[in-house]
Amino acid sequence: MSSRKIFNDPVYGFVAIPNDLIFQVIEHPYFQRLRRIKQLGLTDLVYPGALHTRFQHAIGAMYLMSKTLDSLRAKGHMIFDSEYEGALIAILLHDLGHGPFSHTLEFSLFKNVRHEEVTSWALRRLNKEFHGRLDIAIQIFEGKYPRKFLTELVSSQLDMDRLDYLKRDCYFTGVVEGAVGSERIIKMLNLVDDQLVIEEKGIYSIESFLNARRIMYWQVYLHKTSICAERTLMLIIKRARKLTNSGQTVNATPSLRLFLERSISEEDFLEDQELLDVFMQMDDNDVWGSIKYWVNHEDRILSELSKMLLYRKLFKIKLYNSPPDEDLAVAKKAVQSKYKMNEEESEYFTSMGSVTNTAYLPSALNIKVLMKNGDVKSLTEVADLTNIEALSKIVHKHYLCWPKEITLG
Amino acid sequence: MSSRKIFNDPVYGFVAIPNDLIFQVIEHPYFQRLRRIKQLGLTDLVYPGALHTRFQHAIGAMYLMSKTLDSLRAKGHMIFDSEYEGALIAILLHDLGHGPFSHTLEFSLFKNVRHEEVTSWALRRLNKEFHGRLDIAIQIFEGKYPRKFLTELVSSQLDMDRLDYLKRDCYFTGVVEGAVGSERIIKMLNLVDDQLVIEEKGIYSIESFLNARRIMYWQVYLHKTSICAERTLMLIIKRARKLTNSGQTVNATPSLRLFLERSISEEDFLEDQELLDVFMQMDDNDVWGSIKYWVNHEDRILSELSKMLLYRKLFKIKLYNSPPDEDLAVAKKAVQSKYKMNEEESEYFTSMGSVTNTAYLPSALNIKVLMKNGDVKSLTEVADLTNIEALSKIVHKHYLCWPKEITLG
Amino acid sequence: MSSRKIFNDPVYGFVAIPNDLIFQVIEHPYFQRLRRIKQLGLTDLVYPGALHTRFQHAIGAMYLMSKTLDSLRAKGHMIFDSEYEGALIAILLHDLGHGPFSHTLEFSLFKNVRHEEVTSWALRRLNKEFHGRLDIAIQIFEGKYPRKFLTELVSSQLDMDRLDYLKRDCYFTGVVEGAVGSERIIKMLNLVDDQLVIEEKGIYSIESFLNARRIMYWQVYLHKTSICAERTLMLIIKRARKLTNSGQTVNATPSLRLFLERSISEEDFLEDQELLDVFMQMDDNDVWGSIKYWVNHEDRILSELSKMLLYRKLFKIKLYNSPPDEDLAVAKKAVQSKYKMNEEESEYFTSMGSVTNTAYLPSALNIKVLMKNGDVKSLTEVADLTNIEALSKIVHKHYLCWPKEITLG
Amino acid sequence: MSSRKIFNDPVYGFVAIPNDLIFQVIEHPYFQRLRRIKQLGLTDLVYPGALHTRFQHAIGAMYLMSKTLDSLRAKGHMIFDSEYEGALIAILLHDLGHGPFSHTLEFSLFKNVRHEEVTSWALRRLNKEFHGRLDIAIQIFEGKYPRKFLTELVSSQLDMDRLDYLKRDCYFTGVVEGAVGSERIIKMLNLVDDQLVIEEKGIYSIESFLNARRIMYWQVYLHKTSICAERTLMLIIKRARKLTNSGQTVNATPSLRLFLERSISEEDFLEDQELLDVFMQMDDNDVWGSIKYWVNHEDRILSELSKMLLYRKLFKIKLYNSPPDEDLAVAKKAVQSKYKMNEEESEYFTSMGSVTNTAYLPSALNIKVLMKNGDVKSLTEVADLTNIEALSKIVHKHYLCWPKEITLG
Repeated sequence: MSSRKIFNDPVYGFVAIPNDLIFQVIEHPYFQRLRRIKQLGLTDLVYPGALHTRFQHAIGAMYLMSKTLDSLRAKGHMIFDSEYEGALIAILLHDLGHGPFSHTLEFSLFKNVRHEEVTSWALRRLNKEFHGRLDIAIQIFEGKYPRKFLTELVSSQLDMDRLDYLKRDCYFTGVVEGAVGSERIIKMLNLVDDQLVIEEKGIYSIESFLNARRIMYWQVYLHKTSICAERTLMLIIKRARKLTNSGQTVNATPSLRLFLERSISEEDFLEDQELLDVFMQMDDNDVWGSIKYWVNHEDRILSELSKMLLYRKLFKIKLYNSPPDEDLAVAKKAVQSKYKMNEEESEYFTSMGSVTNTAYLPSALNIKVLMKNGDVKSLTEVADLTNIEALSKIVHKHYLCWPKEITLG
Repeated sequence: MSSRKIFNDPVYGFVAIPNDLIFQVIEHPYFQRLRRIKQLGLTDLVYPGALHTRFQHAIGAMYLMSKTLDSLRAKGHMIFDSEYEGALIAILLHDLGHGPFSHTLEFSLFKNVRHEEVTSWALRRLNKEFHGRLDIAIQIFEGKYPRKFLTELVSSQLDMDRLDYLKRDCYFTGVVEGAVGSERIIKMLNLVDDQLVIEEKGIYSIESFLNARRIMYWQVYLHKTSICAERTLMLIIKRARKLTNSGQTVNATPSLRLFLERSISEEDFLEDQELLDVFMQMDDNDVWGSIKYWVNHEDRILSELSKMLLYRKLFKIKLYNSPPDEDLAVAKKAVQSKYKMNEEESEYFTSMGSVTNTAYLPSALNIKVLMKNGDVKSLTEVADLTNIEALSKIVHKHYLCWPKEITLG
Repeated sequence: MSSRKIFNDPVYGFVAIPNDLIFQVIEHPYFQRLRRIKQLGLTDLVYPGALHTRFQHAIGAMYLMSKTLDSLRAKGHMIFDSEYEGALIAILLHDLGHGPFSHTLEFSLFKNVRHEEVTSWALRRLNKEFHGRLDIAIQIFEGKYPRKFLTELVSSQLDMDRLDYLKRDCYFTGVVEGAVGSERIIKMLNLVDDQLVIEEKGIYSIESFLNARRIMYWQVYLHKTSICAERTLMLIIKRARKLTNSGQTVNATPSLRLFLERSISEEDFLEDQELLDVFMQMDDNDVWGSIKYWVNHEDRILSELSKMLLYRKLFKIKLYNSPPDEDLAVAKKAVQSKYKMNEEESEYFTSMGSVTNTAYLPSALNIKVLMKNGDVKSLTEVADLTNIEALSKIVHKHYLCWPKEITLG
Repeated sequence: MSSRKIFNDPVYGFVAIPNDLIFQVIEHPYFQRLRRIKQLGLTDLVYPGALHTRFQHAIGAMYLMSKTLDSLRAKGHMIFDSEYEGALIAILLHDLGHGPFSHTLEFSLFKNVRHEEVTSWALRRLNKEFHGRLDIAIQIFEGKYPRKFLTELVSSQLDMDRLDYLKRDCYFTGVVEGAVGSERIIKMLNLVDDQLVIEEKGIYSIESFLNARRIMYWQVYLHKTSICAERTLMLIIKRARKLTNSGQTVNATPSLRLFLERSISEEDFLEDQELLDVFMQMDDNDVWGSIKYWVNHEDRILSELSKMLLYRKLFKIKLYNSPPDEDLAVAKKAVQSKYKMNEEESEYFTSMGSVTNTAYLPSALNIKVLMKNGDVKSLTEVADLTNIEALSKIVHKHYLCWPKEITLG
């Protein structure tokens, strides 16, 4: 590389690309595609600044990884250059398998395929193109590399993924309460027997980190308006697929069309290598571009839902502690009567679902702490337990969405 | 309004919507559409954070307008509530006429229609819907309101437009050198005979502001990679239009299609009121969505250019002080020979153009300064002239773009 | 006021002084003296940036008060201009009674006089000078004004004091985890029957605020090195007072000398009006200036302690859950033997004490919440209780300080 | 070092101390003393946040030095560990010779001794204590080390000193216009034949840096109120010295007293090694502590000037393009008549002087630029000359200070 490529990241300042291989990986169309997938799906309908992409996040997480490995080396831990590079590539590519709108459409476009699996397939494909130079990165990503802390830095309660996205999501949403002292946490990370630990004096930072995550959950990630918008998008895709399968003409960009026509499963992916290529051409623009057609579609349901999303005329929403079956029934009846719809049609305008903060807070209690006397304990044993428990509590909430024009009970 | 709507703006914090009329204007599809038009076109290909939209900018400029009017009132100037509201709406809607990719496609989609004209038409249309409640806003926007400072706050060397976009563009690109002390400038604004002046002790802030603008010009707005990308996009549209007009099938979202098929002039707009409606449905997604089709188009030129933009395989570019006619001829020949193209085809891969900072720095010298003794002078008379002149100097540069694979001279 | 005075506050930007009376209050030597009293005592020995003063804090808290009252007015609550001014002056002057090094020396310089009492006396003195124009401010400060929310904004779990100091302490220490969304909290404040409430959707902000405070406690306010330094300073003053009272020559600035010579009680203050004047001339510089003499004092204890503070050669410190009487005895013996000291002398080099976060977190559970349906509930009833309880838990810790040269157990 | 000491710097975040020697240097009383010398003298009387110290600045400049050397190494330049350490120590200690109030009293306390000389002496003294381990640092500081770029990084137009103080002064004053992209500049630094150059694409950053400096000059460093305050302090010291020398009792801390009694020259310093020790015990607190005595001094002039500074009742000031001899004469007469003073006494209340931005902007034109083709040119040849010239223009201004109570012409 004649001169080192540098990214200007408003969150961290300058981020230098450390070597040629990583530069080529970034230049690859698979990775460039992440420029067109927003990190927070439709959250910008609530927080107008939340337009940042998985591309920025991946670069940022790679930056934090390099800072962490530098710090661990400075503490006397030996990390080979090959491991260093592998860890950087692993975190850089950890979201490669995300499709348009990330989590929102993850279960709308496929049949039981999780984005982590797609990431693995895409990594293998890239590895071929790069003649095996991603071997270590793949092992780290998949948890097969002997030194487990490298995998922990990619995916665990204290990984670079979380450290970056919390900070970045704060910066772009403007929710200052979620600010994370990622720099401090990184300085407090250490290794004992190749296992990631946090030094004792970093406990307050961990609490602060867990709290920031909690705040971001309820204030941003599970914001009611976002849930409505995401629900609308899922219903749009569901309807477009149904129309497509019933033989109607539904304009869609070439790659999106394929995923509307077929319900692709893991087996399909493994049998037909080209499916991955098609998937890797799809991004938020395929969906938005298609919606720009669909607002004019003759199917009332598809056009109506598309307009709702485009013009931000969203559903009403209410949260419940248990599934709101009764209210749902009432809402459906009201929709059927007001809009002259049958049962099936009305389901596009009344839907219930549930949200949880589980995915992100499962096992915070397992974080290992390195005490000043050299012992390693679990966070449960050493921290102010009430607080940690409060912060890692899993909450399930159910919701019901229905049209603004209808008043429930 | 039951409770005041608040936006969370990462640049200024909370921005409250002051009244119901303004809230309804913001809710209107014309304004919501600005959520889907990026402020800086394709600049995110260089500065990955530069994804902010005209929606955010308009809200931000409105916020600065309210701060400015509050400050002027606190200095004892009488401003009617109707004027206050009018000025807020005028700045809120000042960019309504921008099409997809703002300036980049301004002259590709129309025939000699400037976005300010479209804004005016759109304002009148909205005014009808709002039963004349935008009258004052329109007068202010068009410079017809008697108190000229209100128009100056919307459009002049020291308007709220510039104050917001410089600050916002810095925040999202991460170019710290462009930071503007907009708060300080606002505190220094004053009125003399209903004309906007800056108080004497604000002169350094003005210099700093002009300098920030200059820096942003060369570092961001006229960044060579952005120019290449924008040029590519213009060529894509040019090709898509040519193919459309020669009868080939070119997929495009319904509104974009209309603008590809016809070359719409001011007269057309005035004759056919529906054209405005169609235009007001178009945003960045129409273009991106169409490009997602075009990468697979059978026309080699259209698909090639589309891939270049999508995969960020951009042209090479070189700047010149005079039009590089000779180099252009050489480049064209090389393209024709290497890619087996004819003269006309080769023009899609070799193009020259010019950039200038004129549009933004024309008449900085006309800023009026209120001296401590009460006199009003022009900035030229009182400031350190060398410096101001340097900062307001107009620079023209010419450029040539050609494919990366070809080495010139 | 010919033109409005503006302060440049790095935390909030420009802070304008709203009227002449407030400007004159700020200009008064009593208030100017706060420029020379650091907000965080000796914390800069740990966080080198923590040099900000009570002057800045008072101006900042006044700024937040004006934002809060503006917001309450915008929500339709009537607040008279006289109340507005009174509340601003009350918060501006709420710390007027602090002496050098704020809390650290509060109980070293006086005999059972709390700084709030001194503030009250100083307010009355000022009120005379200002011909009764501070009447309402005093009533608000002392909780005697009929509209209680004004007093709550000056002193309660959600007062402007806390909102400012947390944010400011973060800015100057660089501890990012303590960042508080004070702007958001202010927007969520409301009144019900003239009582301060937080709107329901502000609950997460409150949790975040309580957590930030908790973090700042353990990371900054009760940092072990600060405790050591503060303890050293208290011992210096104790020794200087003892030497003075035993007739030895101890240089000290005129005002400090008076407080070393006498142990002034509330009665003394009330009897002798001049004592207040002398007190109001004392600031951090009196203590530091005197210490610059004392490093060369012939009394070994005074000079040694002074050098420890000046050259930052501080005690060792250890935290305990119960009073470390045994360790104290051991440490004393060791000091007596190593430094050839008697019992009394050794007490200057071995001391125990306790710290607690009580003062700041007593009754967070009493915060009132305005539910969406209009009910007012206490935070206990509506928030995620585990979390709030964890955040408001009172912690007592005991500590022992002893010389670095001595190894305990 | 058992574990690496880390400073929490609000400007850069965490700053780690790289090794034991540097840690010991920081712990030395000579360096700790910088904790008590404010970076900007009396500027906090204008910008209340400007309380930061030379200690913070030195640590920050060391941090930037390490970033720069890391970046140069990453570009392939060989830098020995001994050079790396030497450069860090050189920049860390570059301000060691500053006395109380830095530049303000530089020529009041001594007779023709510049702080750089004192720094050199102090370095040599430290070097003895550290058994010659500061040899390279001293050579770098004094420009005697063969690789000149190391000295350039300590002291030149683009040194770490300037890069840190501009950024830091902005942070603590809150003057956002002075923000410097130090990170970008550092990334653009390079070496050609061991000479420091800036890469061509960094030219705009240099312009921005020069402009920021210019803004800070007129807005902060040469702010009229600061000049008044500094002038007052100089006059206080002048008076205290005169009274001391005429045999009157003037309380002063032991070290300050010595410098009031004698007018110490370079020769004195070289003859009497103890003078340096005494000087190295003096800091801002010696002056402030003494002023706390002087407000009550029987000499009307000393007490009056001391009160002016303490209570912030400063002079009026006016700027002129040439020495205001006539106005000075008028002012003197007025003072003599109003306050019943003789000629000599009146000179303490009317004084003229001049300020200039020279010290900081002498030879910006000499900055060397590394062109893309490998050539090295001077900034003059390649940059937009008008602009650079404007930015590096030296300005002299004269001023007159006189009491507020007196109205001139």
